[in-house]
Amino acid sequence: MRDLINIGVIGYGYWGPNLVRNFSEIPGVKVRTISDLNSKLLTKAQSRYPAIKVTTNCQEIFADPNIDAVAIATPVSTHFDLALRALQAGKHVLVEKPMTTSSEQGMRLIEEAKRRTLVLMVDHTFVYTGAVRKMKELIASNRLGDIYYYDSVRVNLGLFQHDVNVIWDLAVHDLSIMDYVLPYEPVAVSATGINHIFGEPENIAYLTLFFNSNLIAHIHVNWLAPVKVRRTLIGGNQKMIVYDDLEPSEKIKIYDKGITVNGNSESVYQMLIGYRTGDMWSPKLETTEALSSEALHFIDCIKQGESPITDGEAGLRIVRLLEAATQSMKKQGQLVELDLVEVAA
Amino acid sequence: MRDLINIGVIGYGYWGPNLVRNFSEIPGVKVRTISDLNSKLLTKAQSRYPAIKVTTNCQEIFADPNIDAVAIATPVSTHFDLALRALQAGKHVLVEKPMTTSSEQGMRLIEEAKRRTLVLMVDHTFVYTGAVRKMKELIASNRLGDIYYYDSVRVNLGLFQHDVNVIWDLAVHDLSIMDYVLPYEPVAVSATGINHIFGEPENIAYLTLFFNSNLIAHIHVNWLAPVKVRRTLIGGNQKMIVYDDLEPSEKIKIYDKGITVNGNSESVYQMLIGYRTGDMWSPKLETTEALSSEALHFIDCIKQGESPITDGEAGLRIVRLLEAATQSMKKQGQLVELDLVEVAA
Amino acid sequence: MRDLINIGVIGYGYWGPNLVRNFSEIPGVKVRTISDLNSKLLTKAQSRYPAIKVTTNCQEIFADPNIDAVAIATPVSTHFDLALRALQAGKHVLVEKPMTTSSEQGMRLIEEAKRRTLVLMVDHTFVYTGAVRKMKELIASNRLGDIYYYDSVRVNLGLFQHDVNVIWDLAVHDLSIMDYVLPYEPVAVSATGINHIFGEPENIAYLTLFFNSNLIAHIHVNWLAPVKVRRTLIGGNQKMIVYDDLEPSEKIKIYDKGITVNGNSESVYQMLIGYRTGDMWSPKLETTEALSSEALHFIDCIKQGESPITDGEAGLRIVRLLEAATQSMKKQGQLVELDLVEVAA
Amino acid sequence: MRDLINIGVIGYGYWGPNLVRNFSEIPGVKVRTISDLNSKLLTKAQSRYPAIKVTTNCQEIFADPNIDAVAIATPVSTHFDLALRALQAGKHVLVEKPMTTSSEQGMRLIEEAKRRTLVLMVDHTFVYTGAVRKMKELIASNRLGDIYYYDSVRVNLGLFQHDVNVIWDLAVHDLSIMDYVLPYEPVAVSATGINHIFGEPENIAYLTLFFNSNLIAHIHVNWLAPVKVRRTLIGGNQKMIVYDDLEPSEKIKIYDKGITVNGNSESVYQMLIGYRTGDMWSPKLETTEALSSEALHFIDCIKQGESPITDGEAGLRIVRLLEAATQSMKKQGQLVELDLVEVAA
Repeated sequence: MRDLINIGVIGYGYWGPNLVRNFSEIPGVKVRTISDLNSKLLTKAQSRYPAIKVTTNCQEIFADPNIDAVAIATPVSTHFDLALRALQAGKHVLVEKPMTTSSEQGMRLIEEAKRRTLVLMVDHTFVYTGAVRKMKELIASNRLGDIYYYDSVRVNLGLFQHDVNVIWDLAVHDLSIMDYVLPYEPVAVSATGINHIFGEPENIAYLTLFFNSNLIAHIHVNWLAPVKVRRTLIGGNQKMIVYDDLEPSEKIKIYDKGITVNGNSESVYQMLIGYRTGDMWSPKLETTEALSSEALHFIDCIKQGESPITDGEAGLRIVRLLEAATQSMKKQGQLVELDLVEVAA
Repeated sequence: MRDLINIGVIGYGYWGPNLVRNFSEIPGVKVRTISDLNSKLLTKAQSRYPAIKVTTNCQEIFADPNIDAVAIATPVSTHFDLALRALQAGKHVLVEKPMTTSSEQGMRLIEEAKRRTLVLMVDHTFVYTGAVRKMKELIASNRLGDIYYYDSVRVNLGLFQHDVNVIWDLAVHDLSIMDYVLPYEPVAVSATGINHIFGEPENIAYLTLFFNSNLIAHIHVNWLAPVKVRRTLIGGNQKMIVYDDLEPSEKIKIYDKGITVNGNSESVYQMLIGYRTGDMWSPKLETTEALSSEALHFIDCIKQGESPITDGEAGLRIVRLLEAATQSMKKQGQLVELDLVEVAA
Repeated sequence: MRDLINIGVIGYGYWGPNLVRNFSEIPGVKVRTISDLNSKLLTKAQSRYPAIKVTTNCQEIFADPNIDAVAIATPVSTHFDLALRALQAGKHVLVEKPMTTSSEQGMRLIEEAKRRTLVLMVDHTFVYTGAVRKMKELIASNRLGDIYYYDSVRVNLGLFQHDVNVIWDLAVHDLSIMDYVLPYEPVAVSATGINHIFGEPENIAYLTLFFNSNLIAHIHVNWLAPVKVRRTLIGGNQKMIVYDDLEPSEKIKIYDKGITVNGNSESVYQMLIGYRTGDMWSPKLETTEALSSEALHFIDCIKQGESPITDGEAGLRIVRLLEAATQSMKKQGQLVELDLVEVAA
Repeated sequence: MRDLINIGVIGYGYWGPNLVRNFSEIPGVKVRTISDLNSKLLTKAQSRYPAIKVTTNCQEIFADPNIDAVAIATPVSTHFDLALRALQAGKHVLVEKPMTTSSEQGMRLIEEAKRRTLVLMVDHTFVYTGAVRKMKELIASNRLGDIYYYDSVRVNLGLFQHDVNVIWDLAVHDLSIMDYVLPYEPVAVSATGINHIFGEPENIAYLTLFFNSNLIAHIHVNWLAPVKVRRTLIGGNQKMIVYDDLEPSEKIKIYDKGITVNGNSESVYQMLIGYRTGDMWSPKLETTEALSSEALHFIDCIKQGESPITDGEAGLRIVRLLEAATQSMKKQGQLVELDLVEVAA
């Protein structure tokens, strides 16, 4: 492998400029080409980065033998096709979330990357924030005890999407965070929701996720809320976390609260469950920009031939949850079981 | 009817003392007898109110021809029996929420009260707060436009109940508020939940309520949360309400926010939905103690022979929702339809 | 000393009922007599506590040889006279804050109590809260490092007083907390303020307190604020405290933040001061009612012949600060020095 | 005047890039030259704006006959010299706040600009925010009634300055906002403060400002606070404002609260002052970036030959307050009177 890693970025709308900026700041990495169908966006890119080549034809990126990796920041419906073509052209791929619009597509991408020994990574950005990494660390070191529930709310007066419902747009964040921090995988989902505009996708949804353990998860997403809320509660029998992403500095608070159950007790029924409250603690968090850590991780995985934290399998797990939740929502909460995904070796 | 109304109060635990205090403060009303099985509580009552008779035998209340009305603040499982005996003894009844443990019991009480022309009222206390009355007024005067959703969260590290699940303990508040402020009745419910202590009732639950309209409601209740939350969002297409019961003064905030849908537009797809944001307004609220207004309303209904706001039918509607939600929760979210309740004339 | 301690309470307005309730709950303590000039208040007291004697003549309390101690909860202007008479009658005294209307009066009371070996205690209630005790403990154990500043805000739309200005009504709380938690005494004060109603005392005031050290204190009090604020910042060079008395549970937050000064550095000027940020921590606080701890402490001091935490000297230090601040305020901020108080032995 | 206005920007550190960006976005305006002593910053500027000339020698800007106006974003100590040279070269001037380090310098600049009929504007950025403009509008239309007080807190763990104290660094914002929204000018100031690092300027300060009316103002600034606070209370006898600049959307809240004084009453003393509480209202605010509005206003003033809202006189009023406050602070709160400023015609 060459010392210099060349990147092609497809899509220069909302997220693409962030990808270009962050990859540009990594020593030994160069953004070589940006493609977008909208030539006005390319003019902006050109004026900001005179040394980067721009094109309306992404085929130029796939065909360029000097390009090692491709970052894709386009509408969801195009992810599969673009990622597949990039892999087939021998490029490593970083693709926006959700990875694809179906799990079949996701499995196909994983298979292709595996066969060609290429890195396939999904841009679950929140996984690379200091707050989420701290929660992972706390849970992995068993500081919370048994995990009882994961409850997340992500609502605001947001941009209505026309091609995907609010689950694919907002819940994808919560599901990818949950997938990273929890040591368990959901086995079934019950979801409800509604669309208020005729012909449009659902703009409010509620997901309950069931596990093979004493754990329940719930996600509430809404494009039509008067206030912005980004709050997750994680309850353990030892400690509990409140993660509020809107807090400017104390995003994570750990409460030394819980219940104690005295199973051996022969005392009266009402005495068996006790409450415990203690200190609250808010740890200092790493403040590096998430996308900067993530871009560096992608480059490291390419160089070391390792699998990223948010690899194709992670991307697929999320897509399967999104599929199942959407399916349950159509049936007003009917349980949909998640089978174990088998990917061809 | 005599000028003086005599009240018997059954149950002097957590809520009973509030009933006694509030009824005692109404001119022309006298609490004549308090009964409780716990004689220590009666000693406390006696020392606080030397003029009131106390007894461990509630039959003394039913048998006293001078007592006009009975207020019942005992465990849920005893509501039906005590209320029925009170009605059969010819007393008007104010009973704690939830009214009964089953809709059959509820219908039986309504029938008994109707036959004897007695007032049957359920203590849905929140309905009598300034905040809830203001929301009712705003919705009734169509200030919110079409109601799109009702979303409520009621969580804290609370007292685990052993006889009822968290839906019967906490969601009953949200359901009774919703029943009062919304002009629609739910037609089906999907609920999920979990119990973390073996053999105990569910301590976390999520309810989605469906309506015969463009409306969805959701209630999240939890006895095991590290922080206390009491927040309701009500979204209309004209305005939206945030009701935060923990705010010391500005409990109700009305946001002049919404979306505009331009159905006639021939412009591109993405242009059809617009966002509108305007002022926020927090109205001054009536600060009279809710139970004081409620006690007065009970007395007025007795004197005027009128039906209370939170009458037996309201109590029954809530019990039916609690039953249906519990049933759906057992089946992991499976939809349970609510048939129209028919009460024998 | 008898085993049973008998208390007389003078004043049954706003605070008196709390004194009676708390003293009544201490085993071995009996409230024997309550006096108030307002006979309606005495009727209330009688109905609540049938066993306590009531009187409009406080002389009955002073003359009663069975009464050991007197608690005074009357308007400030009457404190000196009532406390002096109580001491002269051989009673221990607990007097509301501020102790007296002048430091001369304060010294006179201290002298009288000392001569008669009686306990003289001032009701600086906040000193007995879990939050203030925790701050004292943190500062005493040098957890904050050098104390740089103490900054307190106590504002709300409050009851205008007619006999004392806002400093004597509200700042007295902050001064007594500060006096307890800080190991230093102020040496001078500069205060400013204004009265907005002709002929009335000042309703807004700002106090700056100077010390013989690298420390400054400031107190902002206001009867005419649209929102209620009760917030104190204490800055040390190691850690800093935010004390928000309106927080329901996390009243105290300790921030591991500060600056580092590199005095030896020969590096450029701008490099000498560094910033340090770390975790935040909110300790669990003792939740016993402050007045309950305080009443118990008064009784203990009587029994053990010890001097209370908030003794006459503490009361006098606060009165001297109030006097000096009021004097400075009249001169628009002119510095007023606080001489050391000498009390006759 | 030419149709195209050419701008030279001196200083490309923290604020300079914002000036360049905002002026660049105005049609008919061109940033022609950027100067900075630090050539690394110029490299950044060059890469961002390839078409703009960069130089380490600001004389090139003054000497360029094509440049119409100069924006100065350099350390305070250089403002006077650079602004004077720019005016003498016939350029319109926009200078960072505070305008100069002394009122003498300020008067000299005003005089020079007046003689040459050039626009002299000070960058009091907050004056151009939607929040501050709304407060001005509310006060100007007499919605608050008589203004009783203006109280502002601006604290955080901030960058210690070495050349100016915290008053010149932070209070300058509050004073410029106050100067804009209030219809009155202060006549005297009492200030206190302290420096905690030997040899450094004061890092905490408290300013009280007196007026020829029933009004008082107070400003609290601190570089060493564990939490960030940006809150202003403005109290009128009709309504009161809370302005919290850290609120993401509801920065301005107007409380319909106040007191009523019944001067004619012959009732008892205690009855004269009543409290009034009503609704709270938070108006939608203009969200245009302040510096964008400000840059446009500067250009308009140049084109129309008009005087800007934040002209040299406004800059001078603030500098005089900063001087007086610093002087009072050195004397521990001693009152310093502000004479009327006379500028040579």
